[in-house]
Amino acid sequence: MNKPFDYYPFDYYSDPSRIEAAVDALGAMTEPDRPFTRLVFSPEYREARHWLRSQFEEAGLDCQIDTGGNLVGTRKTGETAANRQKVIIGSHIDTVAAGGKYDGIAGVVAGLETVHFLNRQAIDLPFDLEIVDFLGEELNVWGTSCLGSRHMAGLLDEELLARGDQDGRRLSDEIRKVGGTGTAASAPRQDADRIIACLELHIEQSSRLERENIDIGVVTDITGISRYAITVKGSAGHSGTTRMEERKDALVTASHIVTTIRNLALEISAKDNRHFVATIGRIEVYPNGAAIIPGQVSMILDLRASNEQSRDRFLSNLQVACAEISRRETCEIGMDPISAANVAPMDRSLRTHLVRSAKELGLSHISIASGAGHDMAHMSRIAPAAMVFIPCKDGMSHCPEEFATPEAIARGSAVLTKTLLALAGTGG
Amino acid sequence: MNKPFDYYPFDYYSDPSRIEAAVDALGAMTEPDRPFTRLVFSPEYREARHWLRSQFEEAGLDCQIDTGGNLVGTRKTGETAANRQKVIIGSHIDTVAAGGKYDGIAGVVAGLETVHFLNRQAIDLPFDLEIVDFLGEELNVWGTSCLGSRHMAGLLDEELLARGDQDGRRLSDEIRKVGGTGTAASAPRQDADRIIACLELHIEQSSRLERENIDIGVVTDITGISRYAITVKGSAGHSGTTRMEERKDALVTASHIVTTIRNLALEISAKDNRHFVATIGRIEVYPNGAAIIPGQVSMILDLRASNEQSRDRFLSNLQVACAEISRRETCEIGMDPISAANVAPMDRSLRTHLVRSAKELGLSHISIASGAGHDMAHMSRIAPAAMVFIPCKDGMSHCPEEFATPEAIARGSAVLTKTLLALAGTGG
Repeated sequence: MNKPFDYYPFDYYSDPSRIEAAVDALGAMTEPDRPFTRLVFSPEYREARHWLRSQFEEAGLDCQIDTGGNLVGTRKTGETAANRQKVIIGSHIDTVAAGGKYDGIAGVVAGLETVHFLNRQAIDLPFDLEIVDFLGEELNVWGTSCLGSRHMAGLLDEELLARGDQDGRRLSDEIRKVGGTGTAASAPRQDADRIIACLELHIEQSSRLERENIDIGVVTDITGISRYAITVKGSAGHSGTTRMEERKDALVTASHIVTTIRNLALEISAKDNRHFVATIGRIEVYPNGAAIIPGQVSMILDLRASNEQSRDRFLSNLQVACAEISRRETCEIGMDPISAANVAPMDRSLRTHLVRSAKELGLSHISIASGAGHDMAHMSRIAPAAMVFIPCKDGMSHCPEEFATPEAIARGSAVLTKTLLALAGTGG
Repeated sequence: MNKPFDYYPFDYYSDPSRIEAAVDALGAMTEPDRPFTRLVFSPEYREARHWLRSQFEEAGLDCQIDTGGNLVGTRKTGETAANRQKVIIGSHIDTVAAGGKYDGIAGVVAGLETVHFLNRQAIDLPFDLEIVDFLGEELNVWGTSCLGSRHMAGLLDEELLARGDQDGRRLSDEIRKVGGTGTAASAPRQDADRIIACLELHIEQSSRLERENIDIGVVTDITGISRYAITVKGSAGHSGTTRMEERKDALVTASHIVTTIRNLALEISAKDNRHFVATIGRIEVYPNGAAIIPGQVSMILDLRASNEQSRDRFLSNLQVACAEISRRETCEIGMDPISAANVAPMDRSLRTHLVRSAKELGLSHISIASGAGHDMAHMSRIAPAAMVFIPCKDGMSHCPEEFATPEAIARGSAVLTKTLLALAGTGG
């Protein structure tokens, strides 16, 4: 499987050097002091949107900002039927703070590449093709992610839009400033029933494809994400004067919970051959003084499962373990749900198209679950959706070291192009 | 042992109502929004110092701020010998943030009470008696405690004085502003060899005296305090995409360390009948995001031991355990000393005086170790020093709920007075 970079003429479908130039151009639009930072609504984000729109227009796309604030570039079909079908290829160009140049970006650039191919070959698809830069996919200061795809799927409510950030900026106002309406969406976009496919290319954000030397991961499902606030209440006290056996140390108790979560997750993920991970990534200790026994700890449990039975088993085992820890450590333990998203299975027929396209291109491929959330999780609620993963260096993501080769992106883009042609019934 | 409050005429020596009035007067000098906060050098602190000086002067004390910034009120002996002896009774009036009305304050007020008694009885002691409000005993933003007693003992160096806080305020400048010289002290105060006793009354800050219904704790030693920075380096990663078995989770590793420290400390404190406690009170997790596997954790280990062999055994067991945890969790663990203070044994002869005084007053008493640091730890390096503990409510300290009855303070003060008389050879 040790093939040279040019082992297949995927550059018939897409151009690695143009891909690289686009990635670099967007990478330059960052907060200068902490590359790569292009937070949604920031000046850098607006600059990048402006540049992207010019690229869309150069490729002949008809551009508009939709009501949800998404940048939509449409390659219209020659067909004029009022109820003509639609295919969406999209991802996002916002980043987390100190993130990378590829997460989201690779998908938008790969989408644009399919248009360049169709233009060069003068192919008139029997459906409108929309290349979408979804608004604000990354988790933002208003505490939500996937602003654009949620809106398009009719899943963005008033409460969220009314939230203010720490400077009092309302989310709805920010969306209005980038051209959206800033209003809630309780129903999918009007023509949702005419969308026959939503496709997204994304870096894997894990190391399996790279390690196994695989070109293409065809995503089976986007795992459900549940988040819980775990609170431990002990009793603060002087670290010098409170005897060991008298203590109700909230951090000791929290530490038992952290290791229990890890052990239960290891056990379940080993048994379950589908994706299962559990993480405590955020912890706050009060009062957090070197000479004070911690009186309270707050943590967030982030739980991702492809298999909802595994999730439920994990949670019930954790409840039992926490009751035992609470009794032993004489601290109160509370666990409250913050958010929950069900597993989003990818469309079986689209997955078959993606697999067949990879095969026809001579690319190695496997089926793989996505542990991260993506815009396609929301789009899958209203239309057939599927994703292509490409390898990234050392599985690193959400950090400046994030990297994927232009060739890997080109291969993934070629798979999208082949799939478009298959959907068009032309075979490609 | 269930005696009424007035079971002994300790108010012959001291006046509970005057004590209560003084405690309340100082309690009112607080940051209004977070009682009881009177940080060293703050406007509230200066106000309290000003008020205290007026109280000292009303009691006939000759007041000055010494080179270290301590407020010293001297009751001069009638003896005029150039090399006349000195006795110090002192504590402090600064507080931690959101602290209490008694920690330190009780000791200064109790010291002043001894002067009121001597004045009322027109007793001329054969030594100068200094009532000292030691400068800044609590841990401050410059990262040190016991500013005044360290200076008096010759233990305050240039490096520390040159430190700036987050607003760039240098510690030396702040000391100058309250009347000290702001210069380092590398030798004890000049007349140190003539100090025959340093005494301090303090609330216990633990619950043993209250629980066992004991009036007086005679402190055997002030435990050594060692602090270590523990750093765990793992590998940050996406909480959704990084499989459980691939992780190097710094928080999971840190959690194993926290529970190991607690278990080792419980074991050693159970075997060692002297004071032994170990605490992780402060922990910082990077990047501390709900969807990111913790890549690094920094913690501070606070270790207090009356028995230095126990401390060494603990540290060596912890090293072995950390090496094993590091290997198992594939995270690096580092442990660097931040500060270390040896055990400060209290003077045996002074302790005998205190015990005898308590007995003569009909007060119940026990020997007890101090888990907290005190100005007497530093003073004991240059002169005989000893401490009296009094019961406080539920052992609570460094919090607004901190409480000791005026009667408990009066009893402790009476013990100090009796001891002064004993030192004077008058019997009292």
